[in-house]
Amino acid sequence: MHATSRLCAEVVAAIKTVVGHDKQQLHEPRFKGNESRYVQDCIASTFVSSVGPFVNRFEDELRTLTGAAHAVAVVNGTAALHIALLLAGVKPGDEVLLPALTFVATANAVAYCQATPHFVDSEVGTLGIDAFALREYLLANTVIQDGVCVNRASGRVIRVLLPMHTFGHPANMEALLAVASDFHLRVVEDAAESLGSYIGKRHTGTLGLLGTLSFNGNKTITTGGGGAILTDSAELGAKAKHLTTTGKMAHRWEYTHDTVAYNYRMPNLNAALGVAQLEQLPRFLSQKRALFNAYAAAFAGVRGVQLVHEPQSCTSNYWLQTLLLDTPDAAVRDALLDATNAAGLMTRPAWTLMHHLPMFRDMPRAPLPVAESLALRLINIPSSAGLVEAAT
Amino acid sequence: MHATSRLCAEVVAAIKTVVGHDKQQLHEPRFKGNESRYVQDCIASTFVSSVGPFVNRFEDELRTLTGAAHAVAVVNGTAALHIALLLAGVKPGDEVLLPALTFVATANAVAYCQATPHFVDSEVGTLGIDAFALREYLLANTVIQDGVCVNRASGRVIRVLLPMHTFGHPANMEALLAVASDFHLRVVEDAAESLGSYIGKRHTGTLGLLGTLSFNGNKTITTGGGGAILTDSAELGAKAKHLTTTGKMAHRWEYTHDTVAYNYRMPNLNAALGVAQLEQLPRFLSQKRALFNAYAAAFAGVRGVQLVHEPQSCTSNYWLQTLLLDTPDAAVRDALLDATNAAGLMTRPAWTLMHHLPMFRDMPRAPLPVAESLALRLINIPSSAGLVEAAT
Repeated sequence: MHATSRLCAEVVAAIKTVVGHDKQQLHEPRFKGNESRYVQDCIASTFVSSVGPFVNRFEDELRTLTGAAHAVAVVNGTAALHIALLLAGVKPGDEVLLPALTFVATANAVAYCQATPHFVDSEVGTLGIDAFALREYLLANTVIQDGVCVNRASGRVIRVLLPMHTFGHPANMEALLAVASDFHLRVVEDAAESLGSYIGKRHTGTLGLLGTLSFNGNKTITTGGGGAILTDSAELGAKAKHLTTTGKMAHRWEYTHDTVAYNYRMPNLNAALGVAQLEQLPRFLSQKRALFNAYAAAFAGVRGVQLVHEPQSCTSNYWLQTLLLDTPDAAVRDALLDATNAAGLMTRPAWTLMHHLPMFRDMPRAPLPVAESLALRLINIPSSAGLVEAAT
Repeated sequence: MHATSRLCAEVVAAIKTVVGHDKQQLHEPRFKGNESRYVQDCIASTFVSSVGPFVNRFEDELRTLTGAAHAVAVVNGTAALHIALLLAGVKPGDEVLLPALTFVATANAVAYCQATPHFVDSEVGTLGIDAFALREYLLANTVIQDGVCVNRASGRVIRVLLPMHTFGHPANMEALLAVASDFHLRVVEDAAESLGSYIGKRHTGTLGLLGTLSFNGNKTITTGGGGAILTDSAELGAKAKHLTTTGKMAHRWEYTHDTVAYNYRMPNLNAALGVAQLEQLPRFLSQKRALFNAYAAAFAGVRGVQLVHEPQSCTSNYWLQTLLLDTPDAAVRDALLDATNAAGLMTRPAWTLMHHLPMFRDMPRAPLPVAESLALRLINIPSSAGLVEAAT
């Protein structure tokens, strides 16, 4: 307990060295650009709803930023995932592979498709799905029949592999794409947390068949609520637009629809905020990297925890800064959470792992030793852009 | 054809008598109040997302306005309907009774619950479900078994009756509630179009177990995109909040969820617009009533069409002003649509009836003679608040 008390004191001190003595939230948005101006312009135009120039501009700029051929702006990242999974061909009764270590929206979106989430393990290096463990697991537990991957135990088709880029750190997509190819899985990337994160020169969310982004209030940029679907396929891009706009057919005055569809379009008001926020993304990313560097210096002398850094050959957006305890220990983790929050520094453990939630407890899963361990080791610390100014 | 040409000329002239010679949309929002101020306040507070004082205030004011004990603000009216149906107990395989004459969202929300929309007829007087035809139909085609209503033909449980208040005109809820009671149906009201419409002194959406509102850009007031769930049940109100906020359990730092749930919360940014819009609702309602009165005078001498007025003992918000052709005739209707739109006056026929859409073509349905007739007779004409100033 003496060692734990000392660790708590050192962690609080290290964070304060970087962020100062004010209270800090985990992640706050910054509105120092054209937010007010664009939102005023939007209101003055009267086009505040599901049609308007800011939505189109926001999508154009997302395309430019990510390199995706098509971007469709929607009400939030959960809606983006729902549609991306439908477009990837997920059908009722299918299974979808996703990490147990993720936010609940990833698994919920699978459930919306009446499909079964099937949880797989993560790796320490990226905090994303462990491609090598996945390959071993699929070799032992699936069979390819008629060109699709079948779960031997359940007899169900495993249709999609759904990696998530945890806290903005890119998963090992090269290895995951190879597994997906070998096992006939389509790939949808949950890039909700990784706007501005790259694998080599490719933006996260553009390596699979479809990818999704989130612009919730706690993300690197925000539209209030918002998300986007990314794809290079013209056909899927058009379908994404159609499915997110109630499936309405173009006509001068008729209201006709050709499929059960969704009211998921991002309102122009929210897109106006998003356009202003995107203008500041390069600065936010520099500031978040500067914050990582400052934390790295402050934690260099702290024994017992390490700061998570971007994976090799990747550029992370450093959305959430993360400490990893050297050893998994719930008591030490909770002591650190108590000490930091009591000091006015908002910190948070990993999400409760998906297979521990009551509604997903009975879903199929691979052995999850690393996810279980990470859940006892992970602590997110204050991560807002601008806590440390970027060197210019 | 001579008669049709004369009718077209008379209708264009009558509309222009009221709205003048400018181009007119079907329904445009008006932002003449505190919209800009509140949205600026919201951005300055940094609380633009799913938590914030404007969402709470918007819900408080909806409660005050409607008299509902609980109001939960969500991303749009479709999301509100989806959750209201789930909370009314709609289960996969159930059937839900709804009008064939409605916007597609009403039927889509049923499909989201993996339930079957079952279409019933409307009446000319309210444009809503015909309670008397419904009773006859249920008497002939259903049986009560173990306290629930069973469709004899399909064997499925008919769980919910889902009336919609068309263009803001209240359906005959007294008669519909009596049918629902006699046939053991729960009632969810789709009040997407009827904010500010009353049956006696009771606001639409508060007479059933649950009701839903919409604040889409084309509605009487707008939040960009938005909706709300109304209920007098404390239990259902709490569940509505829980299901629309990812089912997250309250905790200082843990992210734990107890059910598959939804990311449907209205962002604070949109609620800021909504609070300002609600302040102006009384004026909008006066203006829309004044517009009805002006149209009524202008169309008094036009033979062949009548203007739809509010049902007896009801107060309509007159969201969309509506002409009814004396006789159902697609050629005359389309000639009128052509003539008015060509004159810069946006008009629109009824939505394509739900049972004519490909995805709902094979769903069960009652005989629909009145809905079929109304679809050939209905034309909505320019309806924005402020086209005519209210007498004060």
